[in-house]
Amino acid sequence: MNPSLGAARIQGERLGRRLEELGRVGALEGGGVCRLALTPEDQAGRDLVVRWMRELGLEVTIDRIGNLTGLRRGRTQGAPVYVGSHIDTVATGGLYDGNLGVLAGLEVVECLNELGLETELPLAVAAFTNEEGARFAPDMMGSAVHQGALELEAMLEVIGIDGQRVRDELAAIGYAGDAPCPGPRASAYLELHIEQGPVLEERDVTIGAVEGVQGISWTELVWGGVSNHAGTTPMRLRRDAGYAAADLACFVRDLALEQGGDQVATVGSLRLEPDLVNVIAQRARMTVDLRNTDDGILRRVERQTEEYARALAEREGLHLEQRRLARFAPVAFDPRLVELVERHATELGHRVMRLPSGAGHDAQMFAPNCPSAMIFVPSQGGISHNVREYTTPEDIQAGGDVLLRIALELTSSPT
Amino acid sequence: MNPSLGAARIQGERLGRRLEELGRVGALEGGGVCRLALTPEDQAGRDLVVRWMRELGLEVTIDRIGNLTGLRRGRTQGAPVYVGSHIDTVATGGLYDGNLGVLAGLEVVECLNELGLETELPLAVAAFTNEEGARFAPDMMGSAVHQGALELEAMLEVIGIDGQRVRDELAAIGYAGDAPCPGPRASAYLELHIEQGPVLEERDVTIGAVEGVQGISWTELVWGGVSNHAGTTPMRLRRDAGYAAADLACFVRDLALEQGGDQVATVGSLRLEPDLVNVIAQRARMTVDLRNTDDGILRRVERQTEEYARALAEREGLHLEQRRLARFAPVAFDPRLVELVERHATELGHRVMRLPSGAGHDAQMFAPNCPSAMIFVPSQGGISHNVREYTTPEDIQAGGDVLLRIALELTSSPT
Repeated sequence: MNPSLGAARIQGERLGRRLEELGRVGALEGGGVCRLALTPEDQAGRDLVVRWMRELGLEVTIDRIGNLTGLRRGRTQGAPVYVGSHIDTVATGGLYDGNLGVLAGLEVVECLNELGLETELPLAVAAFTNEEGARFAPDMMGSAVHQGALELEAMLEVIGIDGQRVRDELAAIGYAGDAPCPGPRASAYLELHIEQGPVLEERDVTIGAVEGVQGISWTELVWGGVSNHAGTTPMRLRRDAGYAAADLACFVRDLALEQGGDQVATVGSLRLEPDLVNVIAQRARMTVDLRNTDDGILRRVERQTEEYARALAEREGLHLEQRRLARFAPVAFDPRLVELVERHATELGHRVMRLPSGAGHDAQMFAPNCPSAMIFVPSQGGISHNVREYTTPEDIQAGGDVLLRIALELTSSPT
Repeated sequence: MNPSLGAARIQGERLGRRLEELGRVGALEGGGVCRLALTPEDQAGRDLVVRWMRELGLEVTIDRIGNLTGLRRGRTQGAPVYVGSHIDTVATGGLYDGNLGVLAGLEVVECLNELGLETELPLAVAAFTNEEGARFAPDMMGSAVHQGALELEAMLEVIGIDGQRVRDELAAIGYAGDAPCPGPRASAYLELHIEQGPVLEERDVTIGAVEGVQGISWTELVWGGVSNHAGTTPMRLRRDAGYAAADLACFVRDLALEQGGDQVATVGSLRLEPDLVNVIAQRARMTVDLRNTDDGILRRVERQTEEYARALAEREGLHLEQRRLARFAPVAFDPRLVELVERHATELGHRVMRLPSGAGHDAQMFAPNCPSAMIFVPSQGGISHNVREYTTPEDIQAGGDVLLRIALELTSSPT
C-alpha cells in the first residue's frame, strides 16, 4: 500500500446518512425495517443502491439471481476484490445487518474517488439476493449461486413462505438480470458486518477479526409417551414425553458449558401435546441447535447428544425420532486476511480480537474459492434481527476505516 | 346387617347393559362418548336415568343446580345414605367415568327391590351436575352446591367455554329444578368409581379402598429472558427462559421421586416464545401440578419448588412471575367407611388396597359433612378421559358387590 494512504479514513457521517436513508425504505412504525427479499420494499432499496452506485461511477451489473454488482475498474484486468453483503432484512429487522457491508463498500469507493486513486485491481461492491432466507429458503441464496454452491435453476424455482416463486418475484421487481451465474472470479472477498452477538461489547473491543463461521447442526427430536392423568399416575408408572424433552434441554446446555470454547447449544423450540396443566404430555417436539468452529468437536457433541437422547428414551419407555434438519460444516477464513484485519485495526488504535461468527454470512460462500474475511463491529446489547439493532457511529467509523485500508492493500497489487 | 344378606350380589350383566345403553347417548363414532354438561346429549342421558329411577320406584327430585336424586324410602325418616356420582363426560370420554357410580346405585336399588327389603334408612341415588368441568368451571359444581361449598346463584351465572350460561342451559334442557340447594342432610355418602390410574391393575388388585383425595396445587410460572441469536450468543451471556423452564421441570420431577409416597409432580404445559430453532427463548410459560394426600408435605414441596425457581431466576438473570392457579387441600375419607370397604372386599374374596385418589370426585364435597368413602375398580391401562377407557365386567361386578354390601350395612341401622 502506498504509505501516504495510511492516513485515509472513511467519512463515517456520510456512511451513517446512507444507512439512515436506506433504513427509511420499508421502515416500520416505531423503528426498524421490513425489507424481505424480492418484495416492493427490496426493489425500492435496490433502486436506491443502484442510483448511488451509478452516482459513484460504478458499472452496475445484475445477474440472473438478482445480485447487484457495482464495478470500479482498476489499472489491470485482474479479478476484482469484492466488498459485499446484502440489503434484504428479516420481517422486523434493523438498519445495520447486511446494509452496513454494502454501504461501507460504497463509502470505500467514494473515498477512492476523492483520493483520485486508480487501484491495480478492480474493486467490486456487491449486494447479494436473499441472504436472510426469511422469505425464501435457503438463506445466502444469492452469494451461494454466485459462487456455484447452489444451482441457479433450482433456486429460481424456490417457493417462498407466501407461495410466490423466486423467478416470478425477481421479474416482478425488475431485477431478473442477465449476467451469468456463477459469477466472475474474485481475487478476494471482504465483508464488514455487525457482530449480531454480545461478545465485542462485553469485552469492550471495537473490531472483531472473524476467523470463520461456526458449523451448524440442527436436530428435531420427537418424543412419544403416554398421555395420562397428572393426579392418578404415580411417578414410576409415567411415560412423560415432556419430562424427556426438558431433561435433554438441560443435558445439551450442560454439555456446551462443559465443552467450553465457542460451543453453543440451544433448545429454541419445544412443544408439548396435549399441553394441559393436568395431563402428562404424550408427545414433545423439540429442536437442538449445536454450533462449533471445530467440526471434530461438533461431531462429538452431536454424537453425545444423540446417544444421551437414545438412552433417556430407553430409560423412560419412550418412542424417539431424531431427524437432522440442517448440517453445515464450519468455514475457516483466510489466515492472511484475518491477520490483516488484526494489523490494520491495531494500527488504527482499535482494540481487536479474533472470534468466530455464530451466524451464516455471504462471506462463507466465497471462502472456498478465494481469500475471504470478515470484519465485525459491536452490536449494542448483542441485539440483531430486531428493530432495536444498533451500532454506534464510532464503531461504524472504525469498521469502515479497517475495510478501506484492507481494500486499498488488496487492490494495490495483483494477488 | 342381616346375616342372610351376606350372600347378596348385584347382577353385573344388568349393570353392564345400562352402562352400554347410557353410553349410546352422545356416542362418538368409533367409540367413546361426548356428553358435556347441560348439552342436549346430557339432557338425553338424564332423561334415561330419570326413566330408570321411576321404573325402580324411586322418588325423583331435581334441585336448582340440576342435580338428580332418586329416593328409596326407608322404615325411618332418618337422613338418607347417598350413593352417587355423575353422568356428564369430557369431550372424548368413556362409558365408565361417573356413569358407573350412578348406574351401580340404580343396580343396588334394583337388588333391594328384588330382595323385597325395606331398609331402616332411606337410600338416595344421585347424579350430580357438571362434575367434569369440561364445559363450565369449576368441576364438581353440582355436588359442591349440594353440600354448600359453592353458592348456587354464583354458579348459575357461570359462563362456559362456548359463551353459554349455566342458568340458561339448565332451563334449555329442562333440568332447572326447584329442590333447594344446599340439599338435605346425608347420613353417609358412597361413590363407586373407576380408578382412572394404573395402580390397581399394576398391582393386580380388584378393589381400591380410597383413603382420600390428594391435595392439588397448580402454579403458572412465566420466565422472562432475552431473545438472542442461537449462534452468536455465548453460553455464559445468555438469559434463556426456555432453559430455566426445562431445569425447573427436571427439578420438580426429581423432587417428587425423592419425596416418594404418593407425591406427584407434572409439567403438562410448556410454551416458548418465539419458539424458533435458532433463537434463544425470551419467554417461557409453564405449569407445575403438585399433588399429595398430606397437606404438610404438599406445602413443603410447593415451598421448595418456589424457592428453587426464584434462585434459578436469580442465577440466570431472568424475570420470574409465579402465580397460583388452583389450590385444594387434601380430603380424608371416613376411616370407618374405608375399613368397611376393605372388610367387605376381603370377605368377597377380592384383593384390596388402600390408595389415594389423584383426581377430584363428588365424594370430596360430602366428606366434610358426613361419613364418606369411595370404592375404586381398575382402569385398563390406567386410561381415562379417553374413548379407550375400559373396566372389565368382572371388576364392575366386584365393585358393585362391595357397594351393595356397604349400602346394606349403612342403611340397616340409623347412624
